[in-house]
Amino acid sequence: MRLSELFTKTTKTVPADETSKNAKLLIQAGFVHKEMAGVYAYLPLGLRVVENIKRIIREEMNALGSQEIIMTSLQRKELWEKTGRWDDAAVDVWFKSELKNGTAVGFGWSHEEPITNMMSNYISSYRDLPTSVYQFQTKLRNEVRAKSGIMRGREFVMKDLYAYSRNAEELQDFYDGVTEAYLKVFRRVGIGDSTYLTFASGGAFTQFSHEFQTVTEAGEDTIYIDEDKRIAVNQEVLNDDVLKQLGLQRDRLKEVKAAEVGNIFNFGSAKAEQLGVYFTDEDGSEKPLFLSSYGIGVTRLMGVVVELFADERGLVWPQSIAPAQVIIDRLGESRATIVAADELYAKLVEQGIETLYDDRDVRPGEKFADADLMGIPLRIVVSDKTVEAGKYEVKKRTATDVKMQSLDDILKDLVATE
Amino acid sequence: MRLSELFTKTTKTVPADETSKNAKLLIQAGFVHKEMAGVYAYLPLGLRVVENIKRIIREEMNALGSQEIIMTSLQRKELWEKTGRWDDAAVDVWFKSELKNGTAVGFGWSHEEPITNMMSNYISSYRDLPTSVYQFQTKLRNEVRAKSGIMRGREFVMKDLYAYSRNAEELQDFYDGVTEAYLKVFRRVGIGDSTYLTFASGGAFTQFSHEFQTVTEAGEDTIYIDEDKRIAVNQEVLNDDVLKQLGLQRDRLKEVKAAEVGNIFNFGSAKAEQLGVYFTDEDGSEKPLFLSSYGIGVTRLMGVVVELFADERGLVWPQSIAPAQVIIDRLGESRATIVAADELYAKLVEQGIETLYDDRDVRPGEKFADADLMGIPLRIVVSDKTVEAGKYEVKKRTATDVKMQSLDDILKDLVATE
Repeated sequence: MRLSELFTKTTKTVPADETSKNAKLLIQAGFVHKEMAGVYAYLPLGLRVVENIKRIIREEMNALGSQEIIMTSLQRKELWEKTGRWDDAAVDVWFKSELKNGTAVGFGWSHEEPITNMMSNYISSYRDLPTSVYQFQTKLRNEVRAKSGIMRGREFVMKDLYAYSRNAEELQDFYDGVTEAYLKVFRRVGIGDSTYLTFASGGAFTQFSHEFQTVTEAGEDTIYIDEDKRIAVNQEVLNDDVLKQLGLQRDRLKEVKAAEVGNIFNFGSAKAEQLGVYFTDEDGSEKPLFLSSYGIGVTRLMGVVVELFADERGLVWPQSIAPAQVIIDRLGESRATIVAADELYAKLVEQGIETLYDDRDVRPGEKFADADLMGIPLRIVVSDKTVEAGKYEVKKRTATDVKMQSLDDILKDLVATE
Repeated sequence: MRLSELFTKTTKTVPADETSKNAKLLIQAGFVHKEMAGVYAYLPLGLRVVENIKRIIREEMNALGSQEIIMTSLQRKELWEKTGRWDDAAVDVWFKSELKNGTAVGFGWSHEEPITNMMSNYISSYRDLPTSVYQFQTKLRNEVRAKSGIMRGREFVMKDLYAYSRNAEELQDFYDGVTEAYLKVFRRVGIGDSTYLTFASGGAFTQFSHEFQTVTEAGEDTIYIDEDKRIAVNQEVLNDDVLKQLGLQRDRLKEVKAAEVGNIFNFGSAKAEQLGVYFTDEDGSEKPLFLSSYGIGVTRLMGVVVELFADERGLVWPQSIAPAQVIIDRLGESRATIVAADELYAKLVEQGIETLYDDRDVRPGEKFADADLMGIPLRIVVSDKTVEAGKYEVKKRTATDVKMQSLDDILKDLVATE
């Protein structure tokens, strides 16, 4: 895309009403627009990052054999009453409204209940198990405070997956599979080194639940990490018994702030019993389904990536989720430079490489500052000087050195780091 | 996808609480799940149809140079008060709720106000114009009645596009461009022949608005079509003056029921004046933006396609939006047949052809009935007989004759009809 055509603009003005680094930078770079506290619209470059994260998650969930669906935002009171989660005293983040005829409706903050109810139409026998579905859903949560930018929103995109199993063992197998898939997702989006499988408080059915926590000062949680074993314990469950059980030593643990980017819940058969969802097992007996649910906060993950990698010059995107792989900064308005930059742009697009082309008639310093603020992994300068040299001036967003490279070398490097 | 793995199942039971053909069939075929009246979840096959329609629309909107974004569901009262559209007396489809601190919020039923407000951050000069943005948004509308299945929902997916122009002429140019693009979308999704550019009542600024109406008995509107000129007049504006103005003759018009699949509104400069959104023109003067908005009901369009093409055996999808191009019905469980069907499936997938593979151990009649109910454009039978013949038994969903074809011929036909 040509920046002369992109409707968003960067701004040096730091939003006065934002306290979080991620929201400040994303607004300044024109990636998001704040509608109200905790409620953000995603503009072209921001939407591309969201879609790239979704693509990676989708590939990994499909690889597990899970099937994509999309549930509804509007929720029925009766269904949630069955599990005791309609009452505001039990769930304090509901947005509620009513139909014209006075029927109460809620707006989906989670989807275990409606999905399990829907799945009961299709699961009757052990032959239908195990099975799982997932969705990318816009969740609405009436949070009291929303100060962490896109990391904790009143409206946000979540990938939630629900798995139905015949018994505890079958559930555990799937649970282990998703754990691996999640770790792969976090590696692919570039936060693998900072993300820890974390033991947190369990529900009625299990001693622990698992969280995926990314170490960042912007996080709301305190966890204790064992860097060698690559696991962590949430503060809420840290005690000597737990440490012993997990084979961890207190003096090898490091206390850090972290943000939860994913979580896993094992509901056992409790949820199915509340909703009255049973299947016929091989021996003819009626048994409740075993349910586990698995979430990744898609937009939160995007915020965490900003917090982890951004520097004093702006955003820094890992190549896998960047809104573009390359930004061409055309310096100067000579005929030869314009032709060379246009040609380079056409060639990169032809190769399927997402490219931003700064074809605006503004000062070089402004172009460099914008390329840095937007966090595009690779900047290629085309100028009278580079045209003369027959090469391009190439700089990585995270590097300080500038290289003169041919197009072939640039393409080779892009593919190698993909 | 193998049907043995697909979690949805077809059912012969017609949903008792549905009056619309589209919802009945989509539920029976396992494409959608009804959460409540006018609120449907999209299951794997249904979601694929939605995504295919979105892909076609996205391609045509991008070709216009429009830029994709995603706004929020949560809406601020103050913004809508400026245009007099917060009041339930003015807009009777609002769902409203409130934040924990008592601040009123609405749920987006349309997005002119927030998008125009957001765009005002980026449009200051005539140099920024014309520009346009679009989104695929889940709209929430508190409809009194919801009896038309996915054709009129309380929760539905809409593509809405908003264009900002310098003056009435620039607006008209874009308007004409979108009109062409919309007609192209409707042709590509297979309803071109039944869809008419229709003159309907305008707003404060223009005499007419334009609708795209698809002729179907399931529609809620009455329009008068001129089949030669390919235009129509909505009943609401039909009078002698209008006919004269449009060069139409009453006795050449045909009265039909139709469903509105798209619409265009010209707001002139009224909306920008209400919201206080101005730009600096070339001569230095401050002028209000000219706004036009353009909608296609994505899920409604899907419902209209069902209504138009479904027959007594079930759904019938045009190839361009079908959840799969091909369904392989494997008949018999002999080793040779299984190997042949597995191989065919692998080859089609390898060619990038979306394929369903009915590998279930059920009677041929059930497989044929399911393939018909799901409306997959091409059915390929693999059986002991076809293995012996060295060819496949091929039948189009809309045809009655069966052909014996080689894989090469099948592939040729698939590409030719794409």
